[in-house]
Amino acid sequence: MKAAVYHGERDVRVEEVPDPEIEESTDAVVRITHTAVCGSDLWFYRGESDYPTPGRTGHEPMGVVEEVGDDVTSVRPGDRVLAPFAISCGECEFCRKGLYTSCVEEKGWAGEHDGAQGEKVRAPFADGTLVRVPERYADDEDVLESLLPLTDVMCTGHHAAVSAGVGPGDTAVVVGDGAVGLCGVLAADRLGAERIVAMGHHEDRLEIAEEFGATETVAARGEEAVERATELTYGGANHVLECVGAESSMDTAFDVARPGGTVGFVGVPEGVDEAAFLEKAFRKNVGLEGGVAPVRKYVDDLMADVLQGTLDPSPIFTKTVDLEGIPEGYRAMDERDAVKVLVKV
Amino acid sequence: MKAAVYHGERDVRVEEVPDPEIEESTDAVVRITHTAVCGSDLWFYRGESDYPTPGRTGHEPMGVVEEVGDDVTSVRPGDRVLAPFAISCGECEFCRKGLYTSCVEEKGWAGEHDGAQGEKVRAPFADGTLVRVPERYADDEDVLESLLPLTDVMCTGHHAAVSAGVGPGDTAVVVGDGAVGLCGVLAADRLGAERIVAMGHHEDRLEIAEEFGATETVAARGEEAVERATELTYGGANHVLECVGAESSMDTAFDVARPGGTVGFVGVPEGVDEAAFLEKAFRKNVGLEGGVAPVRKYVDDLMADVLQGTLDPSPIFTKTVDLEGIPEGYRAMDERDAVKVLVKV
Repeated sequence: MKAAVYHGERDVRVEEVPDPEIEESTDAVVRITHTAVCGSDLWFYRGESDYPTPGRTGHEPMGVVEEVGDDVTSVRPGDRVLAPFAISCGECEFCRKGLYTSCVEEKGWAGEHDGAQGEKVRAPFADGTLVRVPERYADDEDVLESLLPLTDVMCTGHHAAVSAGVGPGDTAVVVGDGAVGLCGVLAADRLGAERIVAMGHHEDRLEIAEEFGATETVAARGEEAVERATELTYGGANHVLECVGAESSMDTAFDVARPGGTVGFVGVPEGVDEAAFLEKAFRKNVGLEGGVAPVRKYVDDLMADVLQGTLDPSPIFTKTVDLEGIPEGYRAMDERDAVKVLVKV
Repeated sequence: MKAAVYHGERDVRVEEVPDPEIEESTDAVVRITHTAVCGSDLWFYRGESDYPTPGRTGHEPMGVVEEVGDDVTSVRPGDRVLAPFAISCGECEFCRKGLYTSCVEEKGWAGEHDGAQGEKVRAPFADGTLVRVPERYADDEDVLESLLPLTDVMCTGHHAAVSAGVGPGDTAVVVGDGAVGLCGVLAADRLGAERIVAMGHHEDRLEIAEEFGATETVAARGEEAVERATELTYGGANHVLECVGAESSMDTAFDVARPGGTVGFVGVPEGVDEAAFLEKAFRKNVGLEGGVAPVRKYVDDLMADVLQGTLDPSPIFTKTVDLEGIPEGYRAMDERDAVKVLVKV
């Protein structure tokens, strides 16, 4: 079969790899139909974080179950499924409390297992990891494209909003206009926020933010951006979603937080060296909550909303490629030609 | 009158300063009877943070009201009072929600106002700032020494415990065996924690921690300390009190936190440059809550416990000096000859 493989900085190739097979009785083999390129993939793509070379890529799988091990009970061949970027056993202390990303058994797809950017994957702990799409929607292409972001970015944006404590009537600030930030806007709106200020640097993305429920947008940078957002929130917001993971965005998030507020952070903090934000957190008693999103905890609720038509994150996909087009997908994301790339395998 | 004045690194002198007077109708003048030297005073004492020279020192005042302005209604001359390290108007948005340290009007004593290490202070916003000690206890020396820590360290330790979410039956880890850490142990015990692991470097202080309710102590350093605390908590604690504010103690706090847990931090983060703890927070979804303690929010509840005899933080005072002895008090704190110094003016 074919799959995308990372060979070094800005070098992703689609090449022949071995077909996956059932190895444990709790495994399933899934034929991938839809997947995506993630903003977090850009860290290694740009050579800014360590990654195996060669290394399989992709962690947002959706597809059809081909085969299951003897102990798999929740899915069967032919089922349309999706899976979070984190593999989880479903049975340990952390899975049971909803913190699937701290599962004692497993970590993630690419790197430790098959990458999702390929024709098939072996899915370990299929019962704990795979989420079944109800049969009546299993072949509805529009629905599937709206569900795919639930494998990562939509649930990650939701985790930012939940971690920031967004509730009905609240004012929230979303820092970042990437796919996660846009999903954060959608999530804050879904949770009932009355005012949502989206901060970013790209007019086209901030337009999507408005479509997703942002009541105001701030396109400025640095101090000007902080001043504008602070002014719009009459002194800072109690709920701030940090959806980037850079040093400057952490600073911005704590700058625009109201004393006593909370920053929900979900951006992989690859670029945060200095802890300047900590002094702000201390002085204003602004909490920091969140982290890597326990997607599995949220996916059922969000799926229900997608299926009933009240939630649709699919506008984040501004470009679509096929399997062979994955390298072009990375290029487009890297050069910001696309917000997020959908891969139809 | 006489008061302590900072003149530069390790140079605190008791010298003649002008008597305070009522300046605003909301002021009171308080004759100080008891005060203390704070661990956070060591930052400037050691030349590690900026401080005016000359600059009045001390922010933990207890004394007797001498005079009040026309608009003061909650205290009158002759009342025994204490005050938090933060001055607060009692009427703004943040005071009303209990976040007195973010009061829009005022900041603190020494630096912006009179320091508490002197014969008298002018207390701005007396109604919002001063806390009256009930008359029947107003001259009970034992009670007063047990109440004095409520001006800062006891409420700060309590804020760490509250921020870390400590409740009945919980397991908590307290990082730091200074006065705040010891008060954190006392607070965790008061909130019902079943197991309290106190981490520090000084056997004599860890003995006080045991007296205060620590069920286990860890006196090791670095990785060994983390391993021991992790083992004692079967994989980390859901509630961690960070009571130091150094880079290494932040790292330790996030190392010993259980996935999904919370670090309550109250140590002034003067020494935290690198944000290594952030990656741990992200990976494990460990929240960071707390900051500078809104003492005024807690002081009434904690005072009730002191007065009924169920709370007594006074063992943190391991040395007592008079007004002239304040420079010796700083020396003793600096050289760790004393946990905390009580000043009887």
